[in-house]
Amino acid sequence: MINIAIDCMGGDNAPLAVLDGCVQAFSLLPDDVHLLLFGDAWQIARYFREKPELSERFSLFPTTEEISCKESPTLAIRRKKDSSLVRALGAVAAGEAEGLLSAGSTGAVLTGATLIVKRLAGVQRPALAPLLPTVNGGHVMLIDCGANTDSKPTFLQQFALMGDAFFKGVMEVEEPRIALLNNGAEEEKGNELTKAAYQLLKQTKGINFIGNIEPRDVLFDEADVIVCDGFEGNMLLKTAEGTAEAIFALLKEGLSSSLLAKTGAALVMPALRALKSRLDWKEVGGAPMLGVNGIVVKAHGSSDARAICRAILQTESLIRGGVVARIAENISALTLE
Amino acid sequence: MINIAIDCMGGDNAPLAVLDGCVQAFSLLPDDVHLLLFGDAWQIARYFREKPELSERFSLFPTTEEISCKESPTLAIRRKKDSSLVRALGAVAAGEAEGLLSAGSTGAVLTGATLIVKRLAGVQRPALAPLLPTVNGGHVMLIDCGANTDSKPTFLQQFALMGDAFFKGVMEVEEPRIALLNNGAEEEKGNELTKAAYQLLKQTKGINFIGNIEPRDVLFDEADVIVCDGFEGNMLLKTAEGTAEAIFALLKEGLSSSLLAKTGAALVMPALRALKSRLDWKEVGGAPMLGVNGIVVKAHGSSDARAICRAILQTESLIRGGVVARIAENISALTLE
Repeated sequence: MINIAIDCMGGDNAPLAVLDGCVQAFSLLPDDVHLLLFGDAWQIARYFREKPELSERFSLFPTTEEISCKESPTLAIRRKKDSSLVRALGAVAAGEAEGLLSAGSTGAVLTGATLIVKRLAGVQRPALAPLLPTVNGGHVMLIDCGANTDSKPTFLQQFALMGDAFFKGVMEVEEPRIALLNNGAEEEKGNELTKAAYQLLKQTKGINFIGNIEPRDVLFDEADVIVCDGFEGNMLLKTAEGTAEAIFALLKEGLSSSLLAKTGAALVMPALRALKSRLDWKEVGGAPMLGVNGIVVKAHGSSDARAICRAILQTESLIRGGVVARIAENISALTLE
Repeated sequence: MINIAIDCMGGDNAPLAVLDGCVQAFSLLPDDVHLLLFGDAWQIARYFREKPELSERFSLFPTTEEISCKESPTLAIRRKKDSSLVRALGAVAAGEAEGLLSAGSTGAVLTGATLIVKRLAGVQRPALAPLLPTVNGGHVMLIDCGANTDSKPTFLQQFALMGDAFFKGVMEVEEPRIALLNNGAEEEKGNELTKAAYQLLKQTKGINFIGNIEPRDVLFDEADVIVCDGFEGNMLLKTAEGTAEAIFALLKEGLSSSLLAKTGAALVMPALRALKSRLDWKEVGGAPMLGVNGIVVKAHGSSDARAICRAILQTESLIRGGVVARIAENISALTLE
């Protein structure tokens, strides 16, 4: 039996998109997965009134507060004890659920996971670790993407061990390729942080460290796990997003510049749309937060039902892959060295 | 009279692409611009033998050494006194040329400019400052893009003053919009460096500081000058490059996925090609290195004749715009505060 806590009130389209996503997930999840729905009882009960066949698939936990993206994450987590997020995190902390999904405020999810679910023994900093699509249809994990700025080299070493645990447990890759995000391929390249992290990673036992990777190679399937400071990871995601948007904007303009181009555009549009969705990292589902004592997955705030459904399936696969236990093992091996 | 020193032996296609670029530039430059060509005398003389009509447009300075991208920049600059780059930099230092263009090793150009041309009084760190194309056909300067890692907040403050001088002098923008590259729009966002730099920039007199800019907005004409640490700027350039390459690779694949798409692809190809060259920041010309006592422009190593020609025209406009004097003035005003 697997229990997944769902923050039904988090996200731009909550609770409707979240509930629709749960319904989609029910049709894909095995019967031994039970969802614990935290949120406004009246709205959730009304939503499921017409779906009596699903009544055994979930439990409803009424909550009375919500956390918005505009609040200070720390204050919100400390004060709003009856918010859907804090209660859902509490269920994971208490062992009533193995994992949690939220599309709410990233800051609140990160802070809440650290304060309530708590770090695994030996973990210096939990990290946010989305999977990005690569050009050949694979995935690469970028860890950390925003939980920590001004990282120390040892944080990056631990991120490598966390990403390694994920790829071994969930993706069943035997020797995940771990790379360090840097501004040059050579060992001596980088700033103070990446130079020191390179030396640490080179000495870390049990991982397959393949050296530096430059940002231009990130999407070309050259590594499974790319470790970086959270500021860098966040900047990389936002740069890639902005560049893709700029290209699509110019493409649209170029494709309507002449009658010939317009005719061609109508024919290539389906291929372009497919490409756009393939590049969209939100499509992958959510970003797991690794290093805490439970599975915490953050879906994008603008997630629709399909994205929520994928993120729930992803939460399930992180639980079944035993990622928490694997990370604990990797980190304790490091500490014992 | 304006003298521009040309490092004829720098770049992947030197000296031919460089010399072809000079010839293209001669047809566009006014007669008062004279080029000082540094390089292998025999190759250069042979090249111009068939072009006697150009003999009054340049002088030839024979050199016997070359600096490659694989050498340590500092050692190469110190030891190869008769390299085309060191001699060309020497001409700028001696006041025999107002500016210099090189497509050689970025590290050697940066190091050489600092050691030989030398910093302007009060400048803490010179910076590499390419112009990127924006979606609406404009340009944005990203400063620094690789000369400095682990910057201090005061470096970024000076970069702002340098970019400001460039936009006022060369682009004739009255109040250039200066932004700070950061991982969020709000004042309190960022890492230690960007938070401290924000406070400094807010207090800096004489500039129009518009706050933080996120990487996703860089190409959308929201600022004229974007200041950042050189590691960040370099990572941003390389991420944008990699994303564009990934999109074009997938596009090519998608466009040949069906007969309909193939037919359409043939019709849209010209628009796509135009788009690709518009996004290519190398097309803009070179990246000026600001903060030294002369105009130093670094063209991309893979520059062809057209790119060299553009970079020469850019060097001329930096000289005519009085950028060095303007930067000196901005920095001394800061120091006197």
